[in-house]
Amino acid sequence: MRILGIDPGSRITGYGVIESQGNELGFVACGTIRTAGEPDFGHRLLAIFSALQDVAAQYAPEAAAVEEVFVARSPRSALKLGQARGAAVVAALSAGLSIFNYSPRLVKQSVAGYGQADKGQVRYMVRVLLGLNAEPSSDAADALALAICHAHHSALPL
Amino acid sequence: MRILGIDPGSRITGYGVIESQGNELGFVACGTIRTAGEPDFGHRLLAIFSALQDVAAQYAPEAAAVEEVFVARSPRSALKLGQARGAAVVAALSAGLSIFNYSPRLVKQSVAGYGQADKGQVRYMVRVLLGLNAEPSSDAADALALAICHAHHSALPL
Repeated sequence: MRILGIDPGSRITGYGVIESQGNELGFVACGTIRTAGEPDFGHRLLAIFSALQDVAAQYAPEAAAVEEVFVARSPRSALKLGQARGAAVVAALSAGLSIFNYSPRLVKQSVAGYGQADKGQVRYMVRVLLGLNAEPSSDAADALALAICHAHHSALPL
Repeated sequence: MRILGIDPGSRITGYGVIESQGNELGFVACGTIRTAGEPDFGHRLLAIFSALQDVAAQYAPEAAAVEEVFVARSPRSALKLGQARGAAVVAALSAGLSIFNYSPRLVKQSVAGYGQADKGQVRYMVRVLLGLNAEPSSDAADALALAICHAHHSALPL
């Protein structure tokens, strides 16, 4: 099963695509969508939407894993993050993917065995689990970790 | 100029389309997108996105006016509202519309002459300004008020 992990943000959105077969995980692609050059906030959202639609078309994942966000520093930052997440979710769903939400704690637990793992541990373990030659960027690593989390949980018997 | 007003919400999204020529305003359409029947939050966002794309295709507005939100009751409600707003903005931009943001205060000022006008005043004035036979629903009225606000402000000399 091919899985797209998405770590949405209004400035930087990370994405990662993996292939999961039984217990085996394979790296397909990862990257970041940077919106700093867009003329306004609406076009940042459109850039996230369009880039993720391109990723979905290029790599044809069946499922998307997105971080479930419950808390934010402030209502204002929550509104920004929420809009980025909304653009990302709509891109995935309108491309025909199923969406799965995972808490940050469960994602860290899945890749590092510890729900409070720090960003460095997550990057390191993503590199190990996918057999990468180098560590991906932090945002791409978070997205790959989400995809790995979904691979682990969707492989469980129902 | 044909203008689409959008009042996004994760449960109910109002929309309204008006035609503005010089000082004249004409009603074209309005309605609400209700998402209560969707299986999960992601599909609520997709319903908002799809319905607004349909509205854009059917009525061919050139511009969309969306409420600028700065505050929310809590980060949690801000995240929900933000995601609905993100889905709405992406629908309008991907349909080729230009997006304009207006504060609630300016919208009320535009239709009722008073930035603290209550919902009843806004509904009443929307009915009067557009010559409607009956008052639209509250969510549709807010969307029409946004469209009227844009008509007034875009008609101003630069």
